[in-house]
Amino acid sequence: MPLPGDLAELSAKVSNWGRWGADDELGTANLLTDEATRRGVAAVRSGRTVSLAVDLKADGIQVGQPARRYNPIVTLTSLNERDPHAPGIWEGTDETFMMSTCAGTHIDALCHVSYDGFFYNGVPTSATTAQAGASKMGAEKLRPIVTRGVLLDLPLHKGVDGLDEIAGGYAVTGEDLDAAADAAGITVEPGDVVLVRTGEMRHYRAGNRKRYAMGKDYQLPGLSVHSVQWMRDHDVAGAFTDTYAYECMPPTQPDWSDCLAVHLLHVRDMGLLQGQNWDLEDLAAECAAANQWEFLLTAVPEPLVGASSTPVAPVATL
Amino acid sequence: MPLPGDLAELSAKVSNWGRWGADDELGTANLLTDEATRRGVAAVRSGRTVSLAVDLKADGIQVGQPARRYNPIVTLTSLNERDPHAPGIWEGTDETFMMSTCAGTHIDALCHVSYDGFFYNGVPTSATTAQAGASKMGAEKLRPIVTRGVLLDLPLHKGVDGLDEIAGGYAVTGEDLDAAADAAGITVEPGDVVLVRTGEMRHYRAGNRKRYAMGKDYQLPGLSVHSVQWMRDHDVAGAFTDTYAYECMPPTQPDWSDCLAVHLLHVRDMGLLQGQNWDLEDLAAECAAANQWEFLLTAVPEPLVGASSTPVAPVATL
Amino acid sequence: MPLPGDLAELSAKVSNWGRWGADDELGTANLLTDEATRRGVAAVRSGRTVSLAVDLKADGIQVGQPARRYNPIVTLTSLNERDPHAPGIWEGTDETFMMSTCAGTHIDALCHVSYDGFFYNGVPTSATTAQAGASKMGAEKLRPIVTRGVLLDLPLHKGVDGLDEIAGGYAVTGEDLDAAADAAGITVEPGDVVLVRTGEMRHYRAGNRKRYAMGKDYQLPGLSVHSVQWMRDHDVAGAFTDTYAYECMPPTQPDWSDCLAVHLLHVRDMGLLQGQNWDLEDLAAECAAANQWEFLLTAVPEPLVGASSTPVAPVATL
Amino acid sequence: MPLPGDLAELSAKVSNWGRWGADDELGTANLLTDEATRRGVAAVRSGRTVSLAVDLKADGIQVGQPARRYNPIVTLTSLNERDPHAPGIWEGTDETFMMSTCAGTHIDALCHVSYDGFFYNGVPTSATTAQAGASKMGAEKLRPIVTRGVLLDLPLHKGVDGLDEIAGGYAVTGEDLDAAADAAGITVEPGDVVLVRTGEMRHYRAGNRKRYAMGKDYQLPGLSVHSVQWMRDHDVAGAFTDTYAYECMPPTQPDWSDCLAVHLLHVRDMGLLQGQNWDLEDLAAECAAANQWEFLLTAVPEPLVGASSTPVAPVATL
Repeated sequence: MPLPGDLAELSAKVSNWGRWGADDELGTANLLTDEATRRGVAAVRSGRTVSLAVDLKADGIQVGQPARRYNPIVTLTSLNERDPHAPGIWEGTDETFMMSTCAGTHIDALCHVSYDGFFYNGVPTSATTAQAGASKMGAEKLRPIVTRGVLLDLPLHKGVDGLDEIAGGYAVTGEDLDAAADAAGITVEPGDVVLVRTGEMRHYRAGNRKRYAMGKDYQLPGLSVHSVQWMRDHDVAGAFTDTYAYECMPPTQPDWSDCLAVHLLHVRDMGLLQGQNWDLEDLAAECAAANQWEFLLTAVPEPLVGASSTPVAPVATL
Repeated sequence: MPLPGDLAELSAKVSNWGRWGADDELGTANLLTDEATRRGVAAVRSGRTVSLAVDLKADGIQVGQPARRYNPIVTLTSLNERDPHAPGIWEGTDETFMMSTCAGTHIDALCHVSYDGFFYNGVPTSATTAQAGASKMGAEKLRPIVTRGVLLDLPLHKGVDGLDEIAGGYAVTGEDLDAAADAAGITVEPGDVVLVRTGEMRHYRAGNRKRYAMGKDYQLPGLSVHSVQWMRDHDVAGAFTDTYAYECMPPTQPDWSDCLAVHLLHVRDMGLLQGQNWDLEDLAAECAAANQWEFLLTAVPEPLVGASSTPVAPVATL
Repeated sequence: MPLPGDLAELSAKVSNWGRWGADDELGTANLLTDEATRRGVAAVRSGRTVSLAVDLKADGIQVGQPARRYNPIVTLTSLNERDPHAPGIWEGTDETFMMSTCAGTHIDALCHVSYDGFFYNGVPTSATTAQAGASKMGAEKLRPIVTRGVLLDLPLHKGVDGLDEIAGGYAVTGEDLDAAADAAGITVEPGDVVLVRTGEMRHYRAGNRKRYAMGKDYQLPGLSVHSVQWMRDHDVAGAFTDTYAYECMPPTQPDWSDCLAVHLLHVRDMGLLQGQNWDLEDLAAECAAANQWEFLLTAVPEPLVGASSTPVAPVATL
Repeated sequence: MPLPGDLAELSAKVSNWGRWGADDELGTANLLTDEATRRGVAAVRSGRTVSLAVDLKADGIQVGQPARRYNPIVTLTSLNERDPHAPGIWEGTDETFMMSTCAGTHIDALCHVSYDGFFYNGVPTSATTAQAGASKMGAEKLRPIVTRGVLLDLPLHKGVDGLDEIAGGYAVTGEDLDAAADAAGITVEPGDVVLVRTGEMRHYRAGNRKRYAMGKDYQLPGLSVHSVQWMRDHDVAGAFTDTYAYECMPPTQPDWSDCLAVHLLHVRDMGLLQGQNWDLEDLAAECAAANQWEFLLTAVPEPLVGASSTPVAPVATL
C-alpha cells in the first residue's frame, strides 16, 4: 500500500531511488566522502572524546514494547578456567551474549523497514528471508561513518530540559532544526551527520526506563514528517536521536495511517542512515561547555551479515 | 601459580599495577589523553577510511577451537511485518543474534585473563561470577579509543606475504617492531596504538578458515615474550593483531608452561588493551599506496556490561 | 504448487482434511483415545523402561545440514553461587540453553511443512509469522502420546544390520511394514504408534555423525511414498524413525520434484504425528531379548508455544 | 558451611550417601524398579491422560526472580521456505529457542544445589565448571520416571482452594502428607512419586504471574523441613509440587540461615528427584471426578548433557 496523500508527494520529492545507480545499496552513505571526513577532522579542537552508546545490559533500554525486542543476555562458557588443550598457569573467562540487533544504541540497515513491497531503491522485500537474512542491504553493507557531526540541541535552544516539557508528542520541524543550527552558528553541509537532541534520554539516565520508552501518556517527542524535507534539502548522510521511537508519537493522522512515516521516508525512500537510543546527554554538556557544536563523529556499525539493524558504539571527538 | 623464572622478572619490569592508583580499572587506557587524540587527528591526510572489522556471520572466523566460542547466529523475530500495536502501511524486520564476545574482531576487557588468582591491578578473580559477570573491569569500563594508530607491517618489511613464510610459529620481537617503525619513519609515542600485521588474515580472506585459526602444523606467528618489553617501553595504549591467537604458537617453553604468557603479561600485568582478528589487509594496501603508516584509529568497544571481551568495529582514517 | 501426478492421487486418498471437523488442529492425535491408551498399558509385561531420546549436546546429532539447525548450546548464569536475595549456606547452578526445535529427538507440529499455501486441514501458511510464531497447530497443541507402540524392526526381519546394507537410499514400502508386523505377530490397530527401525542410528552411536546425517554417497534409507498408504490404512496415530531425514533420500523423481513428499503427505495431508532421531537401538535389543514387539509408548512433546517442532523424550515400557 | 543445628541431625537421618555405592549418580532413581513401574501400570483404569506441563512461552512462568532465569524465546531460522539444497514444492518452518533449564516444568539434576562444597554422594562442587558443565550427575544422567504417581491434594483435604488461604507461607508437614494419603486410601510405597498439590498454580492459571511467583506479601506455601523425614521414611523416588519455589517461604529461621533447606536435604543429602512448576490443577479435577488418587506417572527429563536442571513434560494416566 502506498503512502497516503500528502506523504506520497513528500516521498516523491525526497526520494533518492536511482540517484546513485540502480544497484546502489548504500543510500546516503554515498555522501560520506573523503572531503566530508576531512571536514569532520577539521572540526576537532581539544581532542576530548565522548561516547554516545548506552550500556548493553539485561535491564537495559528495552522494556518489552515493541514486543520481542530483547536486552542483552550474557551467559558464561568459561569462568576463570583453563582450556584443557592449552596448559599453563593462565585462566580465562569467556561468554556469549544474545540480544536484539536494535536493542541498544543502533543503526538501521536499509532493509529494516518497507512499504508497498519495496525497500530502498526498489529492492523487493522478498530479498530478506528467515533462512538467509537480508541478501540486499544487510548490516554488513553499512559503511563506517567518519564525518562531521553536528549537535542540534533543541531543548537548549528552546530553554527547556526536554521537548516533552513543551508537548508530550512534540513533532520536530525543519524550522526547529534550522533554528538550532543557526543558534550554533553551523551551516549543515552534504555528508554531515546531525544528532538531534530531544532530551528524552535524561529519563532513562534517571532510571525511568518506562518513561523513556513509552513517554508521558504514550506521547513521545521526535522527528516528524515536518522534518523530512529538511534532511533531504541539507543532504545529510545520517540523522540520529536520543529517543526510543526515533519519530514523534502519536503520528500526525488520527487513524495512525501514517504510523512510522518518518522511518519510511528516511530509510525506504531516501536511503538515509538513522538510528535510535543515541545518548546525547554528555555530548550536550561538553558542547555547551566548549561552545562547540561540530565535531568528528565516528560510528562503525557491527558488520552483522544479513541483519536489518546492528549495534553501533559512536564517539564524538571535540 | 606465578609465572615461571624469566617471565616473573619480565612481569616485574613491565607491570603497571598501582601506576594509576589502587582502584584503577582502565590500565593503558589512561594513556589515551586528549593530546594523543589530537596526534591521531593530525595524522589524517586524505580522509580515506578503512574498516578493520571482519564480517560477523555463522560461518565466520571461529572454527570450534577454543571450544565453546561461537560465531554469530542471527534469528528472526519479525519478517517484513507490522506490529499489531502500531498500525499503518509500514513493515519491518527485527532479529536477535547470539555470539561469543570474542568471536569476531574484538577487544579484551582487563578481566579476560589472569594467573595466580588476580586480574590487573590486584583485583581478585572472584570479582567475576557467573551470576553477576565482571564486577570489576568489565567491557563497559573500556573507553573509546581515538588516538594515533601506527601500522607495523612486518611482512612488508621482511619481503614476504606473511610471517608464516619465514617460520610457522614466528615469534615477533621488539627488534622486529623497531625495524618496521624505522622503515615507516615513525617514532611510536605514549598513547599510540600499534597494529601489528603478520599477514595471517590473508588465509581467512582466501577462504581458508582452518589455516587461519590453526596455522600450518598448529604453528601460528604472533607477538611473543620477546615483544612485551617493547610495548611497555613505548607505553603504547594498545596492540592489536591480524591473528587468531594473538601470540605465537607454540609458546617458548617445550612444556607449554608459559602458554598465553603474552596475554598474561599484557592484560594482567600491564593492563594493556589488546585484541584479535583485526583485519589489516586493506589497511596495509592503503598505507603502502599512500606511503603513510600513521592514521587516526577509532575503536569503540561495545559497552557490554560485565563481559570479559566485546566486539569492536575499528576504523582507520588516513 | 500442488503435488505432481500420482502423488496428487495418493494425497486425495490419504487426506484427513475435514475428518475431525473444519477447525481440527490435532490430526491423528484424535486417534489417541483412552482405549488406545489402555491397549498400550495392557502391552506392558516386565515394566522395563527404555529411553528413545538421544543426548542433547553441542556435538550432537546436527551436522550443519540442513543449514541453520543448531545443536544445543548450554551456557551458565550461575555456578555454585548464592542468590544475594536468598541468603543461607546453599549454592546453586543455573544455566540457559539454545537449540533448534528439531535438533534432537523431536516431533513435528502440524505447522512444520506445507505445500500449495496450506498446512493440514486447510490452514493457510500465513497463520505462522516470525513475530507471533504459529497461531494454529503450534507445538503447544500437540497432545501427550500414551498409547501402544509397535516396533517394526526392518533390519532384523531382513537379516541385516541396517537397511543401508541393502540399498543406500532404501525406500521402505507398505509390504516391508506388513512383513515386519507379521513376523512380530502384531496386528497394527488404529491409534497405535509405529516405530520404524532402519538401523541408521547405529552410525551415530558409533560416533559417525556425518554418515548418520548424510548417508553413504548422500543416500539415506527411510519411509517413502510407498509406505504412506499403509499408514493411512492402519490409521496409526504416529510414525517415528531412527533417521535424520525421516524419509529416504534421494526421493523417487530424478528431478527431486517430489522431495520431502512423505513429510507433505503425512503432516500436511494426513495430519500424522511424525518425528526423527528416535533412538531405537536399545529398544530393538530389549524387544528381541523379550520377543515382545509391543509396549506402552509415552512421548509428551515440550509445549513450546508457537513452535513448528519440539523436543520430546519418549520412553517405551515393556 | 554445614547445616545449622537441628537440620544437621535431620541431614544425618535422611542422607542416602553411600546407600547405592560410592559412585552412584542416580540417587532415588535407584528406587525406580521394574516393580514400581508395574505398580504404576496397574493403577491405570480409564486410560485418561492429563498433562502436567505448563506452556513454554515468552510471557511464561518466570517473572525475573530469581534473577537470570529466562522464559523461552523462540526465534525463526526459516519461515515457510525451501532449503535451496532440497528442491520441490515443499515449504518448511524452523526455529530455535533459548530458555533457562528450570524456566518451566522441570526436574532438578542432582548437581543443582549444594552446601559445604559437596553435591549428593560426596561429589565435590568443582565437578561442575562453566566450560564443561556438570561432569557428574548432569541432566543426561537422569532416568525416565515411569512409576506409580500419587496425588496428595492438600487443599482438598483441608477444604480450601489453596494452602495460602490457611497461611501465606504454609509449611507442609509429614502429618499433612499422611492425612492426605489416608483420605485417599493410599499407602505410599518405595519408588512411588508423590505430587504435592498446594493450589498455588491456580494463581498462574488465572493470569496472576506475580502472585504465583512471589506469593502474598512474599509468603509462599510449600514443602518444609517438617516434611523431609516423611519423604525418606516412605522412600519415595520423587516429590514434585505446583509451586514456584518448591519449599515454603520464608524458611523457618528468622535469619534465613536455613534458606532452601528442603532443596539441600532432598537433592544434596537424599539424592531425591524433585522439581517445580508442575501443573496439578487438571489432575486434581480428574482425580476428584474419578475418586482415583493413584495413576501411572511418566516423566522423562530432556537429556541435556551437563545441565543442572532440565525441562520435563510429565503426564499422568488414570
